[in-house]
Amino acid sequence: MSAEFAFIDRLRALASHPAARGLEDDAAVLRIGAETLILTHDSIAEGVHVRAGSDPADIAWKLIATNLSDLAAKGAEPLGVLTSHALGDSEWDAAFAAGLGAVLDCYDVPLLGGDTIRLPDGATRVFGCTALGRAICDPVPARSGAQAGDGLWVMGTIGDALAGFTLLEAGEADADPLTAAYLRPRPLLAEGRALAPIVTAMMDVSDGLLIDAARMARASGLSAEIDSSAVPISDAARALLNTKEGEMLRWGDDYALLFTAPRDCNPPVFATRIGVMTDGGAGPVVLDGMALDPSSIGGYQH
Amino acid sequence: MSAEFAFIDRLRALASHPAARGLEDDAAVLRIGAETLILTHDSIAEGVHVRAGSDPADIAWKLIATNLSDLAAKGAEPLGVLTSHALGDSEWDAAFAAGLGAVLDCYDVPLLGGDTIRLPDGATRVFGCTALGRAICDPVPARSGAQAGDGLWVMGTIGDALAGFTLLEAGEADADPLTAAYLRPRPLLAEGRALAPIVTAMMDVSDGLLIDAARMARASGLSAEIDSSAVPISDAARALLNTKEGEMLRWGDDYALLFTAPRDCNPPVFATRIGVMTDGGAGPVVLDGMALDPSSIGGYQH
Repeated sequence: MSAEFAFIDRLRALASHPAARGLEDDAAVLRIGAETLILTHDSIAEGVHVRAGSDPADIAWKLIATNLSDLAAKGAEPLGVLTSHALGDSEWDAAFAAGLGAVLDCYDVPLLGGDTIRLPDGATRVFGCTALGRAICDPVPARSGAQAGDGLWVMGTIGDALAGFTLLEAGEADADPLTAAYLRPRPLLAEGRALAPIVTAMMDVSDGLLIDAARMARASGLSAEIDSSAVPISDAARALLNTKEGEMLRWGDDYALLFTAPRDCNPPVFATRIGVMTDGGAGPVVLDGMALDPSSIGGYQH
Repeated sequence: MSAEFAFIDRLRALASHPAARGLEDDAAVLRIGAETLILTHDSIAEGVHVRAGSDPADIAWKLIATNLSDLAAKGAEPLGVLTSHALGDSEWDAAFAAGLGAVLDCYDVPLLGGDTIRLPDGATRVFGCTALGRAICDPVPARSGAQAGDGLWVMGTIGDALAGFTLLEAGEADADPLTAAYLRPRPLLAEGRALAPIVTAMMDVSDGLLIDAARMARASGLSAEIDSSAVPISDAARALLNTKEGEMLRWGDDYALLFTAPRDCNPPVFATRIGVMTDGGAGPVVLDGMALDPSSIGGYQH
């Protein structure tokens, strides 16, 4: 992936405006007049970020939900989305539009615009979403604000998405709540807004708990010391994957919120304290007392 | 293209928020507090919207410039862009980043964020841009505001992009200003801001003069009566394409501004009056006294 890192470094050099937050955060934070806008863009490619042959309504849901999750991580109220759509056949597109309608309706988010393109037959289709929100508190939580001594919390559960993916790969019925967790993640918008005023740092867990904790730790110049037995894993995921706890901590798509706050803080929504932030000498992540080598934190590294 | 129209109709049914302008305009227009935001998203696919084998710096330029042109058509001041990038090889990506830096620097627009994805080898690469601007006048020009009796103007020239494309297809050196017009279009941002307060309707000419005039006429419930001899075609394009005037009116990529205003208006920037808006009984476009069949207005219909 070094070519990708090189490219992102080039983009970083261009993104010198403070609103870009050095391309190190979940979203851009742009002040305009008395408002603070939150902007994020993420794409999904068929067969890359979602399984080939996925239900188009699920792809639409995931596309929107993952972008709303970035707004949730900044405690923002969504104002709308723009989408970019690569056309399929008309039945496929109709099902995609139905999924789009369902997720926008569920979170009461307006579709503001976007574009539609037709790629050559057989091309990998790519779907994009830009989500726009407004901040509800100042400062807007960043990944970089954690303080040594802060507690580290997870709001939501870890592992359900991996469990759901495992069921799907095994050809199990997809009516299971675990597969729903994988196919139709729920952005924690209300929870993010409740947490934003009290956190010192916050992000969503999109690529894997350990890698995302490492990012927050690095951005804050600290170490995240995590107690694996404290990580909130649902009973259902544990029952399915009981020997794979380490994998659950390294797999993405959970869209939980990861945040730091003073250790004695009582979060306004239910959340689980999984560790503490320390001064960073031990490296970004210390799991059960052992400093992890960057190559062993897994996750979707992009 | 009927499958595409069907899909866009489905999106329209979802885009009921007034900010979306029924997905009929160049951009969304969202009021927030005392500000009015302008938002647009357009993608470019290699081999579809730009010639296969194009210089990556030119692709980056065109990606940003075409989105800024949509802001220009609303008279907006750009606030920033987010991009979506499908990785190539590292040299290609470096050249793309250089082109991105050049266009952002030229128009003094910050890069705020975006995402980077890796598609399977051989996939058609897609590049997306979301541009965000702020309106500088109220109301923000729409395509739908033209009044019967208004004059119809073009700011910029028509045909240079087709001429440049023709040179490139013929393998001519690409240092020509015509090829530059095709490869590196210039969004008319300052001109759009100067015009916005005086126009009744405005849009950019991205898909072809006749088809875009037809869209404005339809959105306004009128006819655009155009005198082809008045259309501003540069001497260079005319010299190259002198037998192809009809084609120049039907080819896109010029990124001129098309606007209506009271007939006796004296536009604040140099512009050419090419016709008049009438009550619409004759169909969307009347060229040199002849109502055009929709199938003969050409352009890039999407």
